[in-house]
Amino acid sequence: MNCFVTGAAGFIGSNVVDRLLAAGHQVTAYDNLSSGFRRFLDDAAKNPAFRFVQGDILDTDTLAKAMKGCDTVLHFAANADVRFGTQRPRRDLEQNTIGTWNVLEAMRASGASRIGFSSTGAIYGDARVIPTPEDAPFPVQTSLYGASKLAGEGMIQAYAEGFGIKGYIFRFVSILGERYHHGHVYDFYKKLLADPAKMRVLGDGSQRKSYLYTQDCIDAILLALEKAHDKVNIFNLGADDYCDVRSSIGWICERLNLKPKLEFDGGDRGWIGDSPLIFLDTRRIKALGWKPRTGIRDGILRTLEYMIENPWVLEAHDKKPV
Amino acid sequence: MNCFVTGAAGFIGSNVVDRLLAAGHQVTAYDNLSSGFRRFLDDAAKNPAFRFVQGDILDTDTLAKAMKGCDTVLHFAANADVRFGTQRPRRDLEQNTIGTWNVLEAMRASGASRIGFSSTGAIYGDARVIPTPEDAPFPVQTSLYGASKLAGEGMIQAYAEGFGIKGYIFRFVSILGERYHHGHVYDFYKKLLADPAKMRVLGDGSQRKSYLYTQDCIDAILLALEKAHDKVNIFNLGADDYCDVRSSIGWICERLNLKPKLEFDGGDRGWIGDSPLIFLDTRRIKALGWKPRTGIRDGILRTLEYMIENPWVLEAHDKKPV
Repeated sequence: MNCFVTGAAGFIGSNVVDRLLAAGHQVTAYDNLSSGFRRFLDDAAKNPAFRFVQGDILDTDTLAKAMKGCDTVLHFAANADVRFGTQRPRRDLEQNTIGTWNVLEAMRASGASRIGFSSTGAIYGDARVIPTPEDAPFPVQTSLYGASKLAGEGMIQAYAEGFGIKGYIFRFVSILGERYHHGHVYDFYKKLLADPAKMRVLGDGSQRKSYLYTQDCIDAILLALEKAHDKVNIFNLGADDYCDVRSSIGWICERLNLKPKLEFDGGDRGWIGDSPLIFLDTRRIKALGWKPRTGIRDGILRTLEYMIENPWVLEAHDKKPV
Repeated sequence: MNCFVTGAAGFIGSNVVDRLLAAGHQVTAYDNLSSGFRRFLDDAAKNPAFRFVQGDILDTDTLAKAMKGCDTVLHFAANADVRFGTQRPRRDLEQNTIGTWNVLEAMRASGASRIGFSSTGAIYGDARVIPTPEDAPFPVQTSLYGASKLAGEGMIQAYAEGFGIKGYIFRFVSILGERYHHGHVYDFYKKLLADPAKMRVLGDGSQRKSYLYTQDCIDAILLALEKAHDKVNIFNLGADDYCDVRSSIGWICERLNLKPKLEFDGGDRGWIGDSPLIFLDTRRIKALGWKPRTGIRDGILRTLEYMIENPWVLEAHDKKPV
């Protein structure tokens, strides 16, 4: 494949780039470095099949030019910070909805024929069916992030129908692993670094989360691209189990040898639009031969290990504009 | 109510304005007159409770200023021409998706607390369940129009959750009646005026359509605003039956005393993204006490009568930029 990866310097994007290169594919990495790190692509940059273009998905000219010659677009660039939706609603509209439209238009201009899209389990809102299958009852959105990803999905589907491209839509649970630099585990670790004696936690600790390890997630994406050939291919990607926030804090504290006093804010959700549980039915991707190989506890511990070994990520992340 | 109606000079919008005024409400009509007609609001303009503001929903300042003091927004402004999606994809993004976001932001700025939104049965794509209920299996979009309305729905739902407004989402079948000035019946009538001897028809004539008469549609909207009080209220609005394109042509020709030779393009859909049948399960709105009072044949004939009596609409429509 000749791949074009947006958000290529981000957590998932950069791991995808490494895997694509390892499998012998050509990769054009596209990122505006607003939240990603050039350093995540240091290894990739040694590979002659790799090319980096610094650019924004809102810059349509640079985008279309950079995409020329690529056949498969993997679109990870997004405002991924679901929690601040109500503080900055324009960001989800621009970076997720308009950004995805720009990527689709660049594909039309450049002739790329397939798009893989990082959607989200948040799109199911307060799901009535759990584990939630891809064809769950038509959901009602509860977050601007979910709504912006829903918009992206819809456009990809319509472009697949109208312009003959193929769409691969992946609805993720929370993903973690090496290079992870936002979300629960990151926040907990940072809070514990700042104050090992006590920690405030959003919600009541009972919020259940189904984390998937990055490499398992990427296995599924690559498998789907290889084996699924419908006009529109939609796959839930999630773990087989879930944990509650209280357990994940327990594992983190155990590894760090800390016994902080935990203070819970209360309520059954961490923030407006947070889903108490995103737990997905993954039978569709499993039918292609996939299964997750790393459990939730191991995924959390690998993530933690990476943060311990790479303190630069935390420092660099704090320097990024919010 | 103190109502703000976008797309107020359009087919449905202007009829809604008249009904709101007749019921004693205050109305601010907002329209850029790109496809609507000021003349549709001539009667309304005689009412002291009416105010017209010429403006675009993409002009956020004018929009927010005009909305001040209104409590209920009825958002009909849209690119409603589903057929040209693939020729002008930016139009659906701008006028439907970004436009709806602008309306929501103007509500935040102005303090309006409720929004009624004209969505579409096209959002169900190639529905697996027919008649299609509101909680049908999560659909796959088949048109840019449907995708842009899906995006609008999702944003309204997320704003309802995040900002405490109430959302009323109406998924319409095709609506017709007085002031109708695009779509099947309009196209057929115009073709027959131009050449009464023969007519080309998209598809094979078997495409089934479930038309709802405007006043029935507006009955349902007003009833929902009065009786539904959830954060997000979603209602299908459609007729109890359907007709095929061949029948509707038959009724039109009968009224016009014409016997044209019909030439069918073939295929089971009129254009890319056209649904062979949009037929909606309307039990949810019926549970509030609504039912359609005008059948499909009568709706088509009233529409035709209006066009015969108001030839200016056809002339004026042709002068609008496409």
